[in-house]
Amino acid sequence: MKFSIESKQGHARAGSLSVNNKTINTPAFMTIGTYGSVKTMDTNDLKKCNVEIILSNAFHLMLRPGTDLIEKFGGLHQLMNWDGLILTDSGGYQVFSLGKDVKISDKGAEFRSPFNGDKVFMSPEISIDVQTKINTDIMMIFDECIKYPSDLSTTEKSMELSLRWAERSKKANYASKTLFGIVQGGMYPKLRETSREALIDMDFDGYALGGLSVGEPSDVMHEIIDENAHKLPDSKPRYVMGIGKPLDIAYAVRAGVDMFDCVIPTRNARNGQLFTSEGIKRIRNAKYTNNTSPIDPNCQCYTCKNFSISYIKHLDRCNEVLAARLMTIHNVYFYQNLMAQLRNAIIASSLDELINKLENDFKEVKE
Amino acid sequence: MKFSIESKQGHARAGSLSVNNKTINTPAFMTIGTYGSVKTMDTNDLKKCNVEIILSNAFHLMLRPGTDLIEKFGGLHQLMNWDGLILTDSGGYQVFSLGKDVKISDKGAEFRSPFNGDKVFMSPEISIDVQTKINTDIMMIFDECIKYPSDLSTTEKSMELSLRWAERSKKANYASKTLFGIVQGGMYPKLRETSREALIDMDFDGYALGGLSVGEPSDVMHEIIDENAHKLPDSKPRYVMGIGKPLDIAYAVRAGVDMFDCVIPTRNARNGQLFTSEGIKRIRNAKYTNNTSPIDPNCQCYTCKNFSISYIKHLDRCNEVLAARLMTIHNVYFYQNLMAQLRNAIIASSLDELINKLENDFKEVKE
Repeated sequence: MKFSIESKQGHARAGSLSVNNKTINTPAFMTIGTYGSVKTMDTNDLKKCNVEIILSNAFHLMLRPGTDLIEKFGGLHQLMNWDGLILTDSGGYQVFSLGKDVKISDKGAEFRSPFNGDKVFMSPEISIDVQTKINTDIMMIFDECIKYPSDLSTTEKSMELSLRWAERSKKANYASKTLFGIVQGGMYPKLRETSREALIDMDFDGYALGGLSVGEPSDVMHEIIDENAHKLPDSKPRYVMGIGKPLDIAYAVRAGVDMFDCVIPTRNARNGQLFTSEGIKRIRNAKYTNNTSPIDPNCQCYTCKNFSISYIKHLDRCNEVLAARLMTIHNVYFYQNLMAQLRNAIIASSLDELINKLENDFKEVKE
Repeated sequence: MKFSIESKQGHARAGSLSVNNKTINTPAFMTIGTYGSVKTMDTNDLKKCNVEIILSNAFHLMLRPGTDLIEKFGGLHQLMNWDGLILTDSGGYQVFSLGKDVKISDKGAEFRSPFNGDKVFMSPEISIDVQTKINTDIMMIFDECIKYPSDLSTTEKSMELSLRWAERSKKANYASKTLFGIVQGGMYPKLRETSREALIDMDFDGYALGGLSVGEPSDVMHEIIDENAHKLPDSKPRYVMGIGKPLDIAYAVRAGVDMFDCVIPTRNARNGQLFTSEGIKRIRNAKYTNNTSPIDPNCQCYTCKNFSISYIKHLDRCNEVLAARLMTIHNVYFYQNLMAQLRNAIIASSLDELINKLENDFKEVKE
């Protein structure tokens, strides 16, 4: 892995990240491909949207289709026919999503497969093994996520468990793959500091802020990012997990973050919420019924170059899945374009102007 | 419209059909795009599958999105961004599908919209007007379809009503568009003959056999096609509506039919039934779980060139809609290739050998 910074404006960085001879620009947004496909899109669609890196999930892929099949292909890239980068999440967040059906001990997490009820055990060692077999480009350590709000003592204990798991994840990295640490500590600045410094001492290839976007108020989230991002090593990529909305991404970029992932562009597309240069448009709004223009007249995506918003609205109304694909293509393209704009703004020292425009366009985005 | 026959083998014909300066090879299969989209596919996907003509439905498009929007675009081609040919069904079959909620009189059919409960009236004049406004390439007359079995007197009355509606459809063709007649008469040879001869006297641009694939035994269907197809004018395209399975298409081609439409390739794809050079494959069959080959190693479709059957099986199992699109692409390509094979076989006088192979591969296809 090689990370280089080309330009800075305040804490914000425009750079590039190379892993396994594939290079992407940063700040970068990772589109979610949980099961080895970005919902509704194939890998050619991704390329047409300028996607360079996707996020996939060790937890999901371990259960379906399982590592045996993925190994048989030589890795997830071959299985899904994707020659861009892949970052895999460790499964920590997914285990957390199962709620109280999980037994967590120092050894790891025990739960029942949500698909067939089988007992499943996941640990730092197993997660790293799965990610290695998936042959991902960037692995994440296996950590514990907790709900919001959690009290100080619960958060502290969990953060300490995550640190022990971080050590074990690092030791378990038998293939010496690129591995990122994840800062925990909930909404407590002191705990975040402890976690951050301990992880920095362990010397990971990159650092993520985890445990955010779990229901906390957005100003709390911004504070934690503002406080922590620039204190992570300058020479390594910084990643905020699970965020987010265009404006939240822009604020985090300003705070010094380089990488993002979120379901918003893809999930919201399937629900008819479209991100455009004119702000949010909702396909189900009656005003688009007779509109022969594209979703966004200023957009160069495949959808906008070929189809009108009224046609897509018609397809959506008829439950034609083509509508979901065309809207997903548009939103994914928009997000890639947003990241390029942020990067160019950093290079041109005009990040504040861009953020002003985004504040106008996207203040009201709900998830 | 121009129809020319290049080569014959027995009753079978290899030719070409030109409408509005677009030319397609015959025998031709029309993929179904009821609402102005072939389910899961966009128009680029269709082109990649060598699709030259699709079938759309006046009945559905009249209700959603309505003719106003389609006219605003200048026609369905522009709405859906499709520069190939479009044939529209008149709505006769769809009215029949509503069952006993329809009041049929000499004037036309009265029913409630299945989408919003509104009262809707459809007549030969209205259907032709809708098809004209859709700016289709080939229109169908508005006819009455009846259930199987129906007694002689019911079938005769209905066939006579359809003949009166055929006259009115022809008169209503104010834009002098290409218009096909539809032979009715149920499973009664005498009634089929009456309908056929009366429609030939009315001098339509092409002729369809309607009222088939409504539940009759397949040998009855074949008999009616064998008896009627070659008695339709030699110089005009012949079309059997709603058929079908690869083997049924091949038999009908042998009987002198030039055009087909059916939901089988697209609907069955969504249910995981795949047509291949090795016969039928069912994606949900366990034996494909670890198979790294494409759906069909001999297939040149986009899906087979890029993805393996186990990957598609995995996506299908995870309810990823990408699976439905990739399987649809494969089946649609297969059908286009089947038609090309049938055409080449006629030219090479080897239709019987091809039918032998299809009998081996597809004897067991269920809908």
